[in-house]
This record gives sequence, structure tokens and C-alpha cells, in this order.
Amino acid sequence: MKSWVESAAVENCHFPIQNLPFGVFSTKALSPRCCTAIGDYVVDLAALEEAGLINAGGDKPVFDQPALNAFMGLGKTAWDGVRAQLTDLLKDGGNPALKGNDALKEAAFIPMDAAAMHLPFTVSEYTDFYAGRQHAFNVGTMFRGPENALPPNWLHIPIGYNGRASTVIVSGTAVRRPMGQLKGPNDTAPRFGPCARLDIELEMGAVVGLPTEMGEPISVQEADDLIFGYVLLNDWSARDIQAWEYQPLGPFQAKAFATSISPWVVSKAALEPFRTSTPEREKELLPYLAEPGPMLYDIELEVSMLPNGGDKATTIARTNYNNMYYSAAQQLAHHASSGCKMNTGDLLGSGTISGPEKTQYGSLLEISWGGKEPLTLDSGETRTFIEDGDTMTLTGWAQGDGYRIGFGECTGSILPALVNKFPRAEK
Amino acid sequence: MKSWVESAAVENCHFPIQNLPFGVFSTKALSPRCCTAIGDYVVDLAALEEAGLINAGGDKPVFDQPALNAFMGLGKTAWDGVRAQLTDLLKDGGNPALKGNDALKEAAFIPMDAAAMHLPFTVSEYTDFYAGRQHAFNVGTMFRGPENALPPNWLHIPIGYNGRASTVIVSGTAVRRPMGQLKGPNDTAPRFGPCARLDIELEMGAVVGLPTEMGEPISVQEADDLIFGYVLLNDWSARDIQAWEYQPLGPFQAKAFATSISPWVVSKAALEPFRTSTPEREKELLPYLAEPGPMLYDIELEVSMLPNGGDKATTIARTNYNNMYYSAAQQLAHHASSGCKMNTGDLLGSGTISGPEKTQYGSLLEISWGGKEPLTLDSGETRTFIEDGDTMTLTGWAQGDGYRIGFGECTGSILPALVNKFPRAEK
Repeated sequence: MKSWVESAAVENCHFPIQNLPFGVFSTKALSPRCCTAIGDYVVDLAALEEAGLINAGGDKPVFDQPALNAFMGLGKTAWDGVRAQLTDLLKDGGNPALKGNDALKEAAFIPMDAAAMHLPFTVSEYTDFYAGRQHAFNVGTMFRGPENALPPNWLHIPIGYNGRASTVIVSGTAVRRPMGQLKGPNDTAPRFGPCARLDIELEMGAVVGLPTEMGEPISVQEADDLIFGYVLLNDWSARDIQAWEYQPLGPFQAKAFATSISPWVVSKAALEPFRTSTPEREKELLPYLAEPGPMLYDIELEVSMLPNGGDKATTIARTNYNNMYYSAAQQLAHHASSGCKMNTGDLLGSGTISGPEKTQYGSLLEISWGGKEPLTLDSGETRTFIEDGDTMTLTGWAQGDGYRIGFGECTGSILPALVNKFPRAEK
Repeated sequence: MKSWVESAAVENCHFPIQNLPFGVFSTKALSPRCCTAIGDYVVDLAALEEAGLINAGGDKPVFDQPALNAFMGLGKTAWDGVRAQLTDLLKDGGNPALKGNDALKEAAFIPMDAAAMHLPFTVSEYTDFYAGRQHAFNVGTMFRGPENALPPNWLHIPIGYNGRASTVIVSGTAVRRPMGQLKGPNDTAPRFGPCARLDIELEMGAVVGLPTEMGEPISVQEADDLIFGYVLLNDWSARDIQAWEYQPLGPFQAKAFATSISPWVVSKAALEPFRTSTPEREKELLPYLAEPGPMLYDIELEVSMLPNGGDKATTIARTNYNNMYYSAAQQLAHHASSGCKMNTGDLLGSGTISGPEKTQYGSLLEISWGGKEPLTLDSGETRTFIEDGDTMTLTGWAQGDGYRIGFGECTGSILPALVNKFPRAEK
């Protein structure tokens, strides 16, 4: 299938007609509203809805809002219906109502570089998991040695913790280096200062489209049906703050300062051809976590680092979402297993995605092995963790036959810590 | 100061004119809206606002809404202004505009037993702390022995973790016993079944009224200024689920199924005469946590248990909020220290409040010492943890000279687990 939008057919384009992701954009003239992407264009869904070319089936418009939540809350019939309508409007030989309407095309097609992208949905609550086997093994080995690397529950439970929704930000938003309590292994007392071990975590985020009832568990299949789509997710992490604070109740301020996501939510429908199974179970799972079919996706992922003042980014990791031990559907089913109510707009981070090779590690903690093995960038500079002014970028796509379902980018640059905002802090 | 509302002067009444807490109620005739309490009455603030007797100073009404968030977001001038207006309207010899208006009194005064109370504010995010010295020592002793009871960071950091806002419920809402993964110390593998060690945690909740900016830390004084008021809070806990899941990232499903709060938010202004200092520091705190003055409150607290089918509740714990090692203002300052954005409607649980004596412990885990020392109720029945049909009730008040600033009750009864909703679960 081809689109009449020529830029959608360019090789390796992230936004061919098979993708049609959802986002929120604005321009100088247009307030934030919902959109899709095709080729080099953002397409204003509020304009198409107002013109009567798409209809999500609800009792009022949903795309004139600055978040996808209203659309997401309408459920699968609406999601699939709008996707079918858009496909018909944008494909060669389809419904000519858009292609043949120059005024509407002029209004609804915005060149990507003229659009500002916003957080695509209001994040209700954010949960981060720890479901990558290699990542858990790597981190566990560094902290506890290879014999005790995996916690005893790890092969039974998709381990997760609640994160902070208030600091989930859209790609492109700069990230302030956090301050926090720090205590090295040889320090006699903690001090308060800027994080010195600032890191990324390469993750995918699952976006919950439909809610559950409080007190009501769901099966893995039901959980999969509630998921609207997926985003790229960077769970920025302050390793030194984390090391001192995390016992006994888990990460808190080390993860609270920022989590970046891609502006595009790729729908489950677009990813359907790329479903793949979780790896063979090392221990049998309890029945409530049984997967009725393939629930992971084959999504290629890359991380690049552009050093402060540099002009060329270095790719520092290449991996694949299919490395995860648990799927988002399993995580969501576990999340609701106690009766925890899940809501439209909940965001579930997959956990760091690392493959078995060092070039496939999804965090600097692993790549530099706790800071002991500095990484050399193409410019010749070295890094253990992230320095001020560095820019970290995630990208990813599912590779189809002659097309890519792309996620665009999830990028962020680091601003220096506000040391002077803490007049009583040690520097 | 006395009110012309006679029931407000009854001895030990929780709602004298000095209190004037805020909540949300409805009746068969009235949709949910904001209210205060005096004596035996709920007072409809939307009616007073519409009649022009109170004005929060914003550009539109705030009390005709089903949550206090709009009012809370207006800040201290609005909070204090409305309190002063209500005091003047309700005190003996004050503004006669309400006392002298029979039609308005008839409309705005609703007997408490005719009002249904709702969650008083939309909970943006919920964070639970672990800031009671005795509780942390007790739990640590049970799990790690008395020498290692307190984690090394405990005297330096107000330890907290993010909880789940979606299951914060108002007092009176029944709580479904959760299902979850369970693994006893002698089990070779986990199983999935109903929680057998269901517990309460007696806490106070601090309600954040004003937001912070992402990336911007705040001082303890600034944090205190952002707090709108306090509620009673019961952090229902599944101890057996928690024991198996919590390493290494903290409590998750063990705490996700329900958190109950009192329907009344007692304002900081009402609690002002009861300020008291945190206890002497065992280790000097870092300057960013320094308190410029007394930031705790002298609030007497009680827990009672009504066994299934019983007709008389037994008081099982009596303690005081002044036992906390860290104040809510310190917790909030720490929460924002990394740049984590705090929002109107964020709820901070104090952590379990236990005094030094066994009769002062704020959880059944501590009272029954891990289930080893059953508690005998007045009826002669014994309990280690909570059984189906049991009702747990928290209450609390600050004792003034001739009056009480009461929080009312925070109560909940336990419904049996939905074992049959998990067709594949072991029973």
C-alpha cells in the first residue's frame, strides 16, 4: 500500500501510511490539538474531524483537545475506525475527499519542522518495570555479584515500582541535572550535591487506553486489549542518588526528576505484524501471567550520544524490544492483579532493554560497567556518565517489507544543576 | 469563641467553630460539591458562595465542584480568607447574613447523617513515607534483627516511595481483600491466592495545595507553605504479598489495592495552635532538611477494630502524630529536592505512626509482632491480621482548651477476595 503523500514513500521514513501514529502538536497559529504523521507532515486531526472526514464515534469531537486521552478512552472500535478512515483518506486510490480538497490539505498538512510537538497524552500515573533479563543480570552482578544477580522473585514477578507522572516530558524538553543526597562507599556521612552519575534507561512505554475497575483483576489477554499503543521512553536516572536512597523502599528521587517519551504513540494496530513471543520461561509462570499468544514486538532500538559542543552523535547502543522477559500485557495484568485500578493515560515503562552483547546495553551504567570502563565517542572524547550539555537520543522502528513503522525520536539535553538554588547546599 | 450552632459546643465534638474542615458531599437532591462541617451539620459552601456570603477571590466559583482542587490551587490568601468569612458567619455575634436567613440556613445546613461524603479532592499522585522511628525500628527488627533494624539512610532521608493515586478512597468505602503472589519462607515456589496477612497502617496524610515548578527545589519553609491541610490516612497493606515482591524496588501490589482517607481535610490554619517540633535529631540533618520552626502537630490518634458480626469495636492502639521523626514539610522538601514537580492534590502519607509502647503501635504487624502474638478483642475473639467482615477505624483530634479539632473517622470494612474472578488461580 502506498500513500499519495510522496515523502511517506522515502526509504526508511518513520511515517509511511502503514504507521499513522498519534500525537499532539501546535503551531504559531494553532493551539495544541491531536494529529497523525505521514511522511514529512503532521496532519491536523481536529481539522479532518471538523470537516467530517474522520469520526471517532463519540458524542462530541475528541481531536480538538491538547491530549489524546478522550480518543483513547473510546476504545478499540474508535481506534480501529479512525485508523481505517485515515488509511482510506491517505492511500493511493482511496477516498478522494482530502486529496481532492486543496484548501483542506493546505490547512491540515503542516510540515514537521513547523510544528511544535507536545506530550501526547495526560499521564495519569507512571509505573516503571524492571523486566529486561540482561539488564537485571548486569545491574545485579555489579551490586551483588553474578551468583546473586537476579533477585529470587525476578523469574516469577514482572517487578515494577510506581514512578512520578508529574515529570513525564515530551522529547526535546531539556532535563535539569538533579541535586540529591549522595554518599560514596567510603564517605562517613551523606552530602547534598549535583548528581555525578547521570544516566539514561532505554525503554519502551505502553500507553493504557482503557481503564479497569477497582478490585477487579484482568487476564493477560484483557490487559493487551486495554493497551492503546507504545512510545519510546527514556527513564533518566541518577545512579548515585539511587544507590544511597533505594533501600528498603525502592527508587524515589533518583528517578523523579524526568522521564522523556517520544511525541508519537504508535498504535497497537500498526505494530500487529511485528508481534513476537517472550523468550522461553526459565521457570514456569503462575497461570495469571500466562500469555495466550505473542505479546512482545520486534522493534529495533538505538541510542546515540551527542557530546556537549559536538557536531556528530555517536550510536552507543543497538538492541531490540524483543529482548524483554515480560511483555507489557503481562506487566499490566500483574499491575491490576491486586485490584489496583488502572486508568486511561497510565504509562508503563518496560524496564531497560539490554541485549546480551555490550554493544546492546541500554544504559551507561551497563555500558561503562559502573563507570569503570569509559566509552569512547567518535569524536575521541570519553564518557562514563552524562555531562552537562550532552544530548541523548533514542530512536526505534519495526522493520517491515519495504517500510518502517517508526517511533521518531526521544531526545533530551542536560542542563547544569541549579547549585545556587540551594543556598545551604554543599557544592 | 462559640458558634450559634448549638451542636458545635457539645463536649468532644470534632467540628467546633475552631475547626471548619473542608470536604465534598452530596445528598439525593444535591450533586457533589464542597462543604465544611460544624457540629452535627455539613454546610454547603456552594450555596454560601452563590449567595455571595463567601468568596475565595478567584475569577469564578470554586465550591460548586466535586473536588477541593480548584479552591486549594488559589493559595493561602484564599484559604485564610474563606476561613475568616466562615468564622464570622458561624460565630456568636458575627456577621448575621447566614444566621438571620432562614431560607439559606434551611438550604445550606444538611444533617451529617443525610449527607454522603466523597473523596474530598482529586488525588494527583500519592506518595507514602516511612518516617516513624518506632515503626521503622519495629519492622526492621522483625525482618533484620534489632542491630540492623534501621537502614543506614533512615536518619538522613525521609524515606518514601510512590504509591498509587487511583485507589485512594474515602472513608466508608469497602475494601476488597487483594489477591497476589505469595511465597512463605519454606515454600519452594510462589502461588497466587488471597492475602492472608491483611493489615492497616495508621497515618496522617498531608494534602499539597500549591504546585512547584519542575526542576526547582524548595526549602522546608516553602514546603510547609504549600500544604493545604491534613487527613487521616489508612495505608492498607498486604504483608505477605509485600514480603515476596518488595526486593529490590519496593512495595507495589501489596499497597496498590486501597488507601483510605478521612472525608475531612483539616486546614493548617485550624491546626496552627498545635504545632510541635520533631524530636531531637539522632544525626544532624543536611541543611536542605532543616526546619525553621515546629512543623509537626500534636494530634491524638486511635485505631479501633470491629470484628465481623460484632457489635462493639475495641480500641487497639492509641498514639500521637508527634511521634514522627520527619514532618510533612520535610518530606515535601525532600520530594521536590531532585526537581520533581509537585502538584495541587498530591497526597503525602506520613508513614505508620507508632509510639514506643506496644499499645501505641499503628499496625497489626507490630501489635501481633509479625503474627506471633495474637491480639484479644473485648469480645474475647483474637486476631493477628484482619479477617473478612472486620471493620477498621482510625480517628484523631488535636485537643485544645475546651475544644477539639477533629478529623472525624477513616473507616473501612473488608470484603472477601474475588477468588472466583481468577479462574486459573490456586485457592
